[in-house]
Amino acid sequence: MTTDTYKTIHVAASGSYDIIIGDGALACLGERLHALVGNCRLALLTDSNIDALHGAAMMKELTAAGYDVCKYVIPAGEESKSAENMLAFLDFMARNRLTRSDALVAFGGGVVGDLGGLSASLYLRGISYIQVPTTLLAAVDSSVGGKTAIDIPAGKNLVGAFYQPRLVCCDTRLMDTLSSDIYRDGCAEVIKYGVILDAALYDKLHTLPFDRIDVVARCVEIKRDVVQEDEFDNGKRGLLNFGHTFGHAIEKLSNFEVSHGSAVAKGMVIAAKMAPLFGLADVEKPLTALLEQYGFDLGCPYSAEQMFDVILSDKKRRGGNLTLVLPRAIGNCDLITVPVDEVLVKLKQVI
Amino acid sequence: MTTDTYKTIHVAASGSYDIIIGDGALACLGERLHALVGNCRLALLTDSNIDALHGAAMMKELTAAGYDVCKYVIPAGEESKSAENMLAFLDFMARNRLTRSDALVAFGGGVVGDLGGLSASLYLRGISYIQVPTTLLAAVDSSVGGKTAIDIPAGKNLVGAFYQPRLVCCDTRLMDTLSSDIYRDGCAEVIKYGVILDAALYDKLHTLPFDRIDVVARCVEIKRDVVQEDEFDNGKRGLLNFGHTFGHAIEKLSNFEVSHGSAVAKGMVIAAKMAPLFGLADVEKPLTALLEQYGFDLGCPYSAEQMFDVILSDKKRRGGNLTLVLPRAIGNCDLITVPVDEVLVKLKQVI
Repeated sequence: MTTDTYKTIHVAASGSYDIIIGDGALACLGERLHALVGNCRLALLTDSNIDALHGAAMMKELTAAGYDVCKYVIPAGEESKSAENMLAFLDFMARNRLTRSDALVAFGGGVVGDLGGLSASLYLRGISYIQVPTTLLAAVDSSVGGKTAIDIPAGKNLVGAFYQPRLVCCDTRLMDTLSSDIYRDGCAEVIKYGVILDAALYDKLHTLPFDRIDVVARCVEIKRDVVQEDEFDNGKRGLLNFGHTFGHAIEKLSNFEVSHGSAVAKGMVIAAKMAPLFGLADVEKPLTALLEQYGFDLGCPYSAEQMFDVILSDKKRRGGNLTLVLPRAIGNCDLITVPVDEVLVKLKQVI
Repeated sequence: MTTDTYKTIHVAASGSYDIIIGDGALACLGERLHALVGNCRLALLTDSNIDALHGAAMMKELTAAGYDVCKYVIPAGEESKSAENMLAFLDFMARNRLTRSDALVAFGGGVVGDLGGLSASLYLRGISYIQVPTTLLAAVDSSVGGKTAIDIPAGKNLVGAFYQPRLVCCDTRLMDTLSSDIYRDGCAEVIKYGVILDAALYDKLHTLPFDRIDVVARCVEIKRDVVQEDEFDNGKRGLLNFGHTFGHAIEKLSNFEVSHGSAVAKGMVIAAKMAPLFGLADVEKPLTALLEQYGFDLGCPYSAEQMFDVILSDKKRRGGNLTLVLPRAIGNCDLITVPVDEVLVKLKQVI
């Protein structure tokens, strides 16, 4: 199976790389690795769920391509995105004597991708890494654009790096094994892309099931365009945080009982309710209807004060200001910088 | 006291910054900070020794300049360059709610500089940081060039990042309080600069005491030139590792009882002994004489096999090859890439 069989989207950021998308795309991983990193050793990072479901297929693909692979498996779940797991994995690579010319394959969802990407950026001050996302969420969001991070006790994603992969290989067939909850999580991010930058995509999402390969490719294109314009998150990239400032606060307050996608869905509704208070469009009703069509529970179980306290630690904050992403219309969002205290006032009006 | 009073060396790498060198240079830190990072909050990282000796002077300078400072003190010593200390410091910054527009001041020797630089690169995916080196070693080496790292159980400096400071402020008067052992440690790196790239500097070092400000400035210029040519360590920057491959092995085998400078001195002698085996110059006698003039003990207490086993984990290794830095003459070293197995053969001939 050659690469031509799949959709390919090229990213030109501080690193330049292809994103390959398609059912069965894993079958071209070995061939692409040879072209990119040659005949080196590979560290394979994955989680316990993915390892049980697809670990054998991945090892078969890599060993058939002649690679010597050392595999490291972390427990599935957000709590694995920890400094402790990262340090244990870094030590594992060192004890396996991986060198600067070796490479890392991150095979899993957002937790594996983020932990793997940050580990690759730090190991010997940087080795090559390849993202093989297995969830819809990772495929459309975390595997693209080079943002990597871990969680620390003080908060989620507070420690990380900008570090671009050498390749993203997205085999959409792997998503067949996702539970409906995990798949829905990714749908929140897909809907987000529609709201912030693509009304046509947003319209298309009203017909279920959507064409998975086409929708993933369109979301990746949107993210690619944003990342190429603002890789280091000093402007337009902030648009991708629509729903996330409030969503992260909900995730944290729930002690991560509320999943990322569910929290982002709730956060998008809060942002939609807030927009008219800043004189912007009121898209709450249509957005709520679409999110409910996907089965999202949209209630916010926390008070404005609880939310605000967490938001003060938001890594997007710069000094006394916070930048909110608010809709002007479906497909057109804006970055609005407001004093943090005003966020509390507005939260009290919408929660 | 204005900046003009001191020597200023400009670095143009992925980040562009000044290195200010002179007796009393700390007095211009507040003014320079305002120009660079404006009116933000500062995290001050230092160690217990520096805090006791110079902590009050630093706090006075920063608060006089109007800065709100949260200070974090780590125990003095190489064992503090750990993941545990870095994570505790990152969590400290998060709990103090430092934002992306705030900055970090690393005030100390190489341990503080490396730990601080890596923390700055990781916190919220990167905030500004300023190096204020207090040792000769940090002034001529680790504070310049943006290499940051921590030690992990598997080895020294195996986890890190390339991340340039916004300013290096080197107050040479702070070196007055260094013990003779710590000062001598820095002299090993100074002599290294002479051997690899500057025969005139090397000659000058035979007259003790040398002019501290002039010698620091010359070493920083040499390092600046190398870093500008090869920031990400894919070629010429390797020259700075003269004596370090063997030195790191000695440090590790001694469980860091042998200091970095002492280990590098021993490592330079091993490299000098090895050069003729590759048909290069024999500078062992004059180099040994100079190092002994500074009081270095040059014996290697470990066997070739012990050294080789550690060298296999060296982060400079790429696949089956290792790049050695060997002298062609004083002031002129070369990078020689050899199969790792040959390193063992040669080590057996010189140890």
